[in-house]
Amino acid sequence: RLWARRAAAVEEINRLQIADLASTDLQQVVDGVDLIILATPVGVMPALVERLLELPDLTGAILTDLGSVKGNVVAAIDARLAGSADIHFVGSHPMAGKEQAGIEHASADLFQGAACVLTPGATSTEIATATVEDFWKALGCRTLRMRPDEHDAAVARISHLPHLAASLVVASALGVDPSFGRIAGAGLRDTTRVASGPPGMWAEILLENSPAIIPALKDLSAKLNEALRLLESGNSDQLEALLRHAKEQRDGLGNHDAD
Amino acid sequence: RLWARRAAAVEEINRLQIADLASTDLQQVVDGVDLIILATPVGVMPALVERLLELPDLTGAILTDLGSVKGNVVAAIDARLAGSADIHFVGSHPMAGKEQAGIEHASADLFQGAACVLTPGATSTEIATATVEDFWKALGCRTLRMRPDEHDAAVARISHLPHLAASLVVASALGVDPSFGRIAGAGLRDTTRVASGPPGMWAEILLENSPAIIPALKDLSAKLNEALRLLESGNSDQLEALLRHAKEQRDGLGNHDAD
Repeated sequence: RLWARRAAAVEEINRLQIADLASTDLQQVVDGVDLIILATPVGVMPALVERLLELPDLTGAILTDLGSVKGNVVAAIDARLAGSADIHFVGSHPMAGKEQAGIEHASADLFQGAACVLTPGATSTEIATATVEDFWKALGCRTLRMRPDEHDAAVARISHLPHLAASLVVASALGVDPSFGRIAGAGLRDTTRVASGPPGMWAEILLENSPAIIPALKDLSAKLNEALRLLESGNSDQLEALLRHAKEQRDGLGNHDAD
Repeated sequence: RLWARRAAAVEEINRLQIADLASTDLQQVVDGVDLIILATPVGVMPALVERLLELPDLTGAILTDLGSVKGNVVAAIDARLAGSADIHFVGSHPMAGKEQAGIEHASADLFQGAACVLTPGATSTEIATATVEDFWKALGCRTLRMRPDEHDAAVARISHLPHLAASLVVASALGVDPSFGRIAGAGLRDTTRVASGPPGMWAEILLENSPAIIPALKDLSAKLNEALRLLESGNSDQLEALLRHAKEQRDGLGNHDAD
């Protein structure tokens, strides 16, 4: 069952025949369900939870989300759930996505082999957490549990920083002369692919997690200045050592295809 | 025909049966050939050209290379060729490669759809340049001609800067806690893939082209500090505008598969 804010989205879902029920009516969609998945921008999730709490018959339901940031969002949702209905919230962050937005870019194997971080909180029960884990495993994910603050610190480094860096690199690569793009190889394309992601969504993510991203960005800035000093002084040995260490770190990640 | 410095490389070539002739004897390999391709690190190319000039019967031969930097290398080769044998040098830079080194990672379609920049110089004739163009087109490349200094300025932005940035990003992503890598998605993998390239070769390229890379790196550093200011001040509108502009630039590059 899919709920959407816009009638046009519901029409598209019905045209594609990808849901048993699609509607802009929240009550109709969540009536009698066991598991609710919030797949909206993180900023609107707490208000959506308030709307859910106004609906009858959600007792015992499990609630999860797809948000890229956890700390404040989990706290805001937990605060709204506390002492009210018997709804169990378990935060989820599947580490998979596409730079293209929209249902026409959906793919059935998107989650295959991807990590999915779960961040159990104040209203999570062990049964609820295990149920959400089973859901993601059924889609092909490997699941891990982390505290919301641990999650945010990690994704600041391995997702949010690389995303912002990709946007800045493509701006530096093509800002002087856009025609340079005609000789670009796979290197530039891969390095900057994520910069094609939705700007509004990413601005929200970056600001929501800025306390963890700012120190990561300062770290990158310091490394960049160090590389500049090595280039200016022509220090071949240290430059090669820097590249060699980065290669070891990158080789340790493996490749996506190998997941 | 393949020339190699090491006997072990010649043995590997013979084992794989990928050449009509493979040898560590330079004279034997280039005897009577029309086209010679230098596929060594750029630093050793001028000395290799000197060795070629000591050999008999290369009159009329066309010489090209695969180097990622052109300015100083082309000038050094042209200086050695000037007034000596009737050899025509046309610099080439096919914009394709792999992060893995070694003949075992060769692929027949590596150059399919890739741009190849030619940098005709003092000893190039139009026939020599057209011959080298035809060679690359036969391998699937689209060719462009540029001046060596124009080439170096462009690749500093669209190849060397992204490479160095990828190395710095992976170091910032995993430097605090290497275990963050276990939740990394395709975004980090793609963004940093090129950082797995050979460190020695890349240190040489970056230093060889440092006059063009240093201003590009300073530009990236300034953009990074601007992004930091937007995050610190919580400026959502300007952060989104920055990401939107980068998205437009990235979307203009297209994807590798679409080449």
